[in-house]
Amino acid sequence: MRDETAHRPHERLARHLADDLAAVNALIRERMTSRHAPRIPEVTAHLIDAGGKRLRPMLTLASARLLGYRGEHHIRLAATVEFIHTATLLHDDVVDGSEKRRGRPTANLLWDNKSSVLVGDYLFARSFQLMTETGKLDVLRILSDAAATIAEGEVLQLTAAQNLSTDESVYLQVVRGKTAALFAAACEVGAVISEAGAAARSALHDYGDALGIAFQIADDLLDFSPEAKIGKNLGDDFRDRKLTLPLIKAIAAAEGEERAFWVRTIEQGRQQEGDLETALALMERHGSLEATRAEALAWAGRAKAALAALPDDPIREMLSDMAEYVVARCT
Amino acid sequence: MRDETAHRPHERLARHLADDLAAVNALIRERMTSRHAPRIPEVTAHLIDAGGKRLRPMLTLASARLLGYRGEHHIRLAATVEFIHTATLLHDDVVDGSEKRRGRPTANLLWDNKSSVLVGDYLFARSFQLMTETGKLDVLRILSDAAATIAEGEVLQLTAAQNLSTDESVYLQVVRGKTAALFAAACEVGAVISEAGAAARSALHDYGDALGIAFQIADDLLDFSPEAKIGKNLGDDFRDRKLTLPLIKAIAAAEGEERAFWVRTIEQGRQQEGDLETALALMERHGSLEATRAEALAWAGRAKAALAALPDDPIREMLSDMAEYVVARCT
Repeated sequence: MRDETAHRPHERLARHLADDLAAVNALIRERMTSRHAPRIPEVTAHLIDAGGKRLRPMLTLASARLLGYRGEHHIRLAATVEFIHTATLLHDDVVDGSEKRRGRPTANLLWDNKSSVLVGDYLFARSFQLMTETGKLDVLRILSDAAATIAEGEVLQLTAAQNLSTDESVYLQVVRGKTAALFAAACEVGAVISEAGAAARSALHDYGDALGIAFQIADDLLDFSPEAKIGKNLGDDFRDRKLTLPLIKAIAAAEGEERAFWVRTIEQGRQQEGDLETALALMERHGSLEATRAEALAWAGRAKAALAALPDDPIREMLSDMAEYVVARCT
Repeated sequence: MRDETAHRPHERLARHLADDLAAVNALIRERMTSRHAPRIPEVTAHLIDAGGKRLRPMLTLASARLLGYRGEHHIRLAATVEFIHTATLLHDDVVDGSEKRRGRPTANLLWDNKSSVLVGDYLFARSFQLMTETGKLDVLRILSDAAATIAEGEVLQLTAAQNLSTDESVYLQVVRGKTAALFAAACEVGAVISEAGAAARSALHDYGDALGIAFQIADDLLDFSPEAKIGKNLGDDFRDRKLTLPLIKAIAAAEGEERAFWVRTIEQGRQQEGDLETALALMERHGSLEATRAEALAWAGRAKAALAALPDDPIREMLSDMAEYVVARCT
């Protein structure tokens, strides 16, 4: 059921939060400058201007607004979350040796790996300055924990790559690190500054966590979907020998010759013409893509269920629709 | 006056703070672990176990003790400062493509650049978790400001490299970033947790700032000192076309053929056999090494002068001697 209206919840939320989002963009622009090193805003602007959906800052804004927040800290925290995200993108592209991001050449390609590493560090530091300005220790704990989980997940992904014994629990841990931790933190800090109770706080955390997992599973599934490939090539993860959920499921079901195929292509990395087609056929044979799709939908369902504890409000509806939106891309 | 007892103040301070330092080392070991990614403690231990002088954590411990602090936060902050330092070393070695650090192969060589980038990120995040545990917003401001200054200084160094118009003010900014910012913050946070007044706080900040600058100028000078080269090769900075103070001074004095020599070797990077010797001779001719030495000594003097506002105590003596110690290596 490829839903042609699937993009709408996201855009509706952006419209609903338009003033806040404009303030976030202004703050990002103000804080990405550097008094001494013009290279910093150059590199940052390349990534920030390329757009991106500002999904994470919107989660912070939406969470705070949903709980009736009326101050200014949600703007700072939304910018914080976007800085952390941008920093991890810069470092990811170095780690992965990526050449394209959001349809444009990556910063590591346009400048160099050095600039990407150091500008990423600068944005991390800037994000900590911003969150400190809220004066809320709970916020600092949540976001520094998230930053540690992100880095841990990336290292885990690095060491799990090419390792055929990577199972679904390791995959989930990687996904929590690379995506869900920041989604969950982005939502939860919105609750914290709103002085919301423990129930609302944990509901928003759980929503962000499940949304992030659904989002990442959908993204990993999309890598094997011939339709709707934007900015990336079909099977990039297979070529990079990244063990995402569809591959893990197919490998778990493999025996004999199939197993030998995975050992050669993933573990030993000796790939040749036609291997991607074979991999796709094997995933098809074992229903790996279908099972992965079902998991993405299940996580989207959990995200929606978590919202039940929160006030009935148009924003809650949009967050609920957002959970459908992130998996609609692959269904 | 190469002082054979120059190592003593540093060791005296380490002995004086032995219990605190042991607690810091235990905390570092506890917090460098990762529940999910064993690669993280492996890489971290490689660097932490190689020793290093623990200069920065000692500054935090000494500052707190000098001001009569009796709590436990100084241990956390000393570990924080060492984590930030270790993270920057990991990233520096990637940026510089270094192969040796503290006499051992670098992590980027033993593992890979990816691990160094991501483990560095993890340690940054861990450092923010640790400082948040102190519950002191002033501490968080000082250390997140320092982290931003460090990254900014590194980017500035990157863009200033090979640029013959780099002057002494840019150099000072780079040095503040790569060394003095963390020294100053390490000292100042010791004062903050001790609930010291503004005078003691600013005295310790100024001491750390001047000590860091003296330390770095001495380090850069040492790169051109044939004696006492440990772990590095004579003229590494010249070969890397890094514009440190001795080179900046020699280039500022250069005209005609000399200027052409610097354009070829630094700006264009076309170095050949014998160039280092020529560079050394030019620096000698213009008194660049002597003038650099004088600046290191002047900053050491400023560091000592800043201590006047602090309580008369054996620790203050050791900090004063430390300022002499860091420049004694190159005098």
